[in-house]
Formats: sequence, structure tokens, C-alpha cells
Amino acid sequence: MKQRLTNYLEWMKQNDIDVSFLTSTDNVFYLSGFYCEPHERLLGLLLFQEKEPLLVCPGMEQEEAKASGWEYEIIAYSDIDNPWQLLSNAVQKRLSRITKAAIEKEHMNVARFEAISAIMPDAAFFSAEEKLRKLRMIKDSDERNKLLKACALADYAIEAGCAEIKEGKTELDILAAIEYEMKKKGIAKMSFSTMVLTGANAASPHGTPGLTKIKKGDFVLFDLGVVVDGYCSDITRTIAYGEITEKQKEIYDTVLRAQLTAIEASKPGVSAADVDRTARNIIEEAGYGEFFPHRLGHGLGISVHEYPSVTETNPLLLEPGMVYTIEPGIYVPNVAGVRIEDDVCMTENGVEVLTKFPKELIGL
Amino acid sequence: MKQRLTNYLEWMKQNDIDVSFLTSTDNVFYLSGFYCEPHERLLGLLLFQEKEPLLVCPGMEQEEAKASGWEYEIIAYSDIDNPWQLLSNAVQKRLSRITKAAIEKEHMNVARFEAISAIMPDAAFFSAEEKLRKLRMIKDSDERNKLLKACALADYAIEAGCAEIKEGKTELDILAAIEYEMKKKGIAKMSFSTMVLTGANAASPHGTPGLTKIKKGDFVLFDLGVVVDGYCSDITRTIAYGEITEKQKEIYDTVLRAQLTAIEASKPGVSAADVDRTARNIIEEAGYGEFFPHRLGHGLGISVHEYPSVTETNPLLLEPGMVYTIEPGIYVPNVAGVRIEDDVCMTENGVEVLTKFPKELIGL
Repeated sequence: MKQRLTNYLEWMKQNDIDVSFLTSTDNVFYLSGFYCEPHERLLGLLLFQEKEPLLVCPGMEQEEAKASGWEYEIIAYSDIDNPWQLLSNAVQKRLSRITKAAIEKEHMNVARFEAISAIMPDAAFFSAEEKLRKLRMIKDSDERNKLLKACALADYAIEAGCAEIKEGKTELDILAAIEYEMKKKGIAKMSFSTMVLTGANAASPHGTPGLTKIKKGDFVLFDLGVVVDGYCSDITRTIAYGEITEKQKEIYDTVLRAQLTAIEASKPGVSAADVDRTARNIIEEAGYGEFFPHRLGHGLGISVHEYPSVTETNPLLLEPGMVYTIEPGIYVPNVAGVRIEDDVCMTENGVEVLTKFPKELIGL
Repeated sequence: MKQRLTNYLEWMKQNDIDVSFLTSTDNVFYLSGFYCEPHERLLGLLLFQEKEPLLVCPGMEQEEAKASGWEYEIIAYSDIDNPWQLLSNAVQKRLSRITKAAIEKEHMNVARFEAISAIMPDAAFFSAEEKLRKLRMIKDSDERNKLLKACALADYAIEAGCAEIKEGKTELDILAAIEYEMKKKGIAKMSFSTMVLTGANAASPHGTPGLTKIKKGDFVLFDLGVVVDGYCSDITRTIAYGEITEKQKEIYDTVLRAQLTAIEASKPGVSAADVDRTARNIIEEAGYGEFFPHRLGHGLGISVHEYPSVTETNPLLLEPGMVYTIEPGIYVPNVAGVRIEDDVCMTENGVEVLTKFPKELIGL
């Protein structure tokens, strides 16, 4: 945690930023180790180049904040306190004049911006988000281990979903069984709304799980993840139920070939665009280019979507410590929807695949 | 929907607001009938006093928007379009100069505020939120019917939870069983994270469900709700497991008496503060005042927390059409945590109680 703060403060110094006020749950967690969903209440981390940092949080969270290892000042306000006044006092105690401040412009709302602007009337405001995205993009070994645990539970969730595939079951039946198993393992939070899609629903990249019953000859597509110690996993598997057609098999094989080739192509120094292109070429050459409408993958960590973005146009060179998804898909309306997704961690020699559920075509 | 738009435009006219740009899922749904979770993408409703309104949404949502009954212009942008440019063109086509604009200051982020400010360089920005909260506070009969359906399913969820109370079950076991039953009924979304708390955990207003096993002599507290057709229910029941002590019974009876008395006191023209006070007095007179640390209730509808706020200090007079919770609680550390919560709808003669699960002490 100290190293993360040091790296961030280095950026503030290089850019003459006097103060940063960071307010998103994820960035506060990343820099302080304290995870808090404050709902409508104010949560914030106030950082200075040289002065002691400060955490602002709802009063009832104070003990949690200390328990999480935060050693510096905490402003814990009650529902009748004005946290902005307390913040203003704390700022004035540290710095008399602020000309450059950093905030998360894509997170902070206008009402709060007006409040912080009143506290720092001479400040020009810059966005801290791009820098934080870049810092968070490179995971340390502790983060990798948490992701590995989250991935192992995601594997288990797919297993639980497969066990529930039976004639007459609906998408929501299967989804409910998966989340039930996860809760029994002590998982309180999924990375995002679990997807169990079948038949025509799986063939739309826009489907949502409902009361559709699975039927023989359909694919069942699972897309899910779990949060472990604040870190998200994200896996997709597509399972055949009953006999499927040659066409469906061809689509599955094409996606799998694209996915395996992109894993193979993932090496330090290769660009994100080249990895996306590798998979996309295979799908295009097989004649399904128009049915692969999304990027190959996205980074993941504290957020389920973070840097690096693995798109056709991102020139970013991959580096050890990056963790991202590789998830090509082909969605042919009324024929089949197939996506296969793994989470991978870049090492010196290529990627380690963190999700391990089998990928050869499984028929149930 | 037309009536809602008319009411909102009336406020714009009274306050000389040239244009409103509303961007929260809930307010867009309230005024347009179109429910959309755009994630990081832009969703917005652009409203003018006299010109045709306009909906901005991600391209893949366009068909949904039309299907929801939106009859006016839609700007459906792709991931390579710049939605702000499209918005700018649409604004300029309608109005040449804008001096007063309304936005949701507690929802819109700074990055978007900078973008909309560039489109309306002469505008002063006002908050539309207070007005929208007041409009949404009075439900029409269609909204009441949706809430009634959501409440009936919440009742059923409590029933499902009770059926799962058995020696050795953990809080998460029971929680998982409830959500499983809800999914089987086709409910895709709970109003908020379901709470199943037992023993010491229930006696803290800050507990989260975990792997604690229920044991004889404990209360099990359920707090949950479901979303039906965009409307949220919210119910709490506290069930005794095995033999409980006289002290625990006394606490239960006190909470129940406070709750029933507050329902009785809820009449048009009575203030929210008086209703809160009615319940609080009973709890204080029983000697538990310090163990009832929260407000009596909150409004609910499209959001699970909306107006009216039923606090000791809110002078607002209750009116027919208001829907709110009545949820006194007593939390004595290491003794018991009890909360009983109903959703009620104000009528000309008093409140209709929408949640109907029994409230007399149930022992399992």
C-alpha cells in the first residue's frame, strides 16, 4: 500500500498537483487498503505531496478503516456533521493556497465538485483517473494471488452451473443454483450480474437471463465472476446441451481456436491491438467477422473493467503484471452464440491462464 | 408518462429553465418510461419548454427505447460516434441561446458537466433533483399496483426464508435459498443486497450476512425487497428461532407496538415528523430510545430510498399517493436486534399496508 501511495505522489510532484481528493470506492481501496461502499455518503482520500494524508469516511466506518491498516488521520463524520467543513479545516491546516488539484472527474458529481471548489477557490482541477488506471494496470504478486482465488471460485461456479443443466430448467433456475453455491462458499458479491443464456438469447450479445427453458440442441452460455478480497474474476464458458449441428460445432471450434491463438500471441512487448487482431483474423477468415462485434478483452482487478483494453486500435504494449480477459465470441442470430473467456496474467514469458475450467466442447 | 412530462415542464416554465438534461436511470425511466442501465455509456433526456424532447441512448438500446413507448426523437449513438457532438447539433437545432439549464447535480459527473457546459457556454446550471423527488413522491394508481406486486413477492421471499430456518444453516445459506426462490419466480433484481442476520449480527445495525450459523434462542432478521416493473419493495421481519427470553419478547413487543401505532398515526395532513415521533415515543418510554438509532422510514418507488423521508425533523405533511416504509427497530448489543418494516401507501383515510406477511411473533 505504501508503495502505491509513493508512486501516486510521485505523479503529483511531477505535475505540480498540490492536493488530490479521490472519492471512488475502488481508488480509495487501491491506495489505502480500506474498502467502503458509502452509498450516498462522502468517502474520500485527501493526498498531499509532503503533508500527511487523510481519510474522510462515515462515522460508522471508522473502526473498519483502522482495522484495514490505515495509519494516518481519519475524519469520521456523523450524519449531523458537515463533512465539507471538516475537510476544509483539514486542508487549511496543511496548505494555505492550492492552485492545482486532482479529482476523479468521471466519478465525482457536480454537487460535490461545487463543494470542493468552494474549499479550494484558487484551484484548477485535473483528472487523476488516467494515472490511477495506469498504476492499477500492473498487478503485484499479492493482487495476482487474490485474482487467482477469485478465478478458482469462478471455475467452481461454472461447474455448479453445468451440474444444473437439465431438461425443463430455465436460465434463472440455473443462475439461482450457481449463486446459491457461491453463497454457500461465503461469496457475498458477484463481479457483475451473472449471465446464463440459452438458444436465441445466447445468440444475442444483448440477452438477459429469463424464464426461457433450455432445450436439446442449444448452447448454454455462462458469463460470471466473483469478488474475493476486493478482486474480480470474469469467466465465460459455452456448453452444448444435447446433439448440436455441424454448423454449431464449427462456430465453437472457431471461437476456441481464436481464443487459444490469442493466449499464445500474448507476450510482453506485443501490443493489445495485435492480440485482438490475432483472434479477429481467425474469426474473419472463417467467415464470421461480422458476428464478433466486441473487443477481445479488458483488464480486470479491483474493477471488473479496467486497463488494459484489448481492442483492435490500442497500441499499448503488454507488460508483466497486466491481468486481462481474452474472450472472443461469435453470435449468429437463430444459429448459435458462443463465447469463451479466460482471465490471464502476463509474466516475463507469456501469460499464465488464471481460469482453468476446461474449454474443449462439452456436451451434456 | 405524458402527465409526468407536463408536470415537469410546468416547473421549467415557472423557473425560466430553457433546457433540462437528465441522465440518471431512475429519472429517465420516470419521465420517459424507458428503463436503461447504460453503465459507463451516456443516457440522457433533453427537455425543452416548447420544443420536442429528445432521448440519447447507446445504439444497442434503441429498439428497447421505442418498444417502451417513447414517441419522440432518439439519438442512438454507436461506440465510435461522439454523443456530445450529436447532442450539440440537436440542441442548436432547437434553441440558439441557453441561459438557464437544469441537470441532476448529485448524479452528473464532472467530466460530463464539462462536456455539457461546452455545448451551453452561456448557461447557468440548476439542480432538477429536488423537483423530481417531489414529483416522484406522489404515486399514481399504476405505480401503486406495481408496488403492490413487488410487495407480494417480498412477502413470499420472507416465507421462503422462514422455510429455510433450520439448525446448522448459515445466514448465507438462508439468503441463497431466498434469492433462488425469487429467481424461479422470474425476479431478476432485488431492491438491494438481501440481509439475513442472526444473533449478535442482527443486534448490530451495521451487520452483513456471513457464515454465522443460526442457533436456538436467536432472532433471525430478514430485510429484503424485489424489483417488479421498475418498482422496489422493502420488507423486514424478525423471527424467533427456538425458545427466546422474556427480555427478547419484550423488545419484540415494543417494536411491534411502535410499528402498529405509527401505521395508525399515518393520516393525510399529519407530518412525517409526527409519525416518526409516535413510534419513537413508545420505544423511548419502554427504555430503549438509545437503541433505535435510525429514522422511522423512507419513501420508496423507482428508487428504494426516495421521498418522503420519515424523520423526527421532517415537517412535510403526508398526502394521498405517498408510499413509504414504517420500520422501527431496537438493537441491544449481545441481547437482540429486532426490526419490523412494512411498505404503506397513503390514501384519503389513512394508509394501506402493501406488505402483508404476519407480524405477530413467530417462533420456529
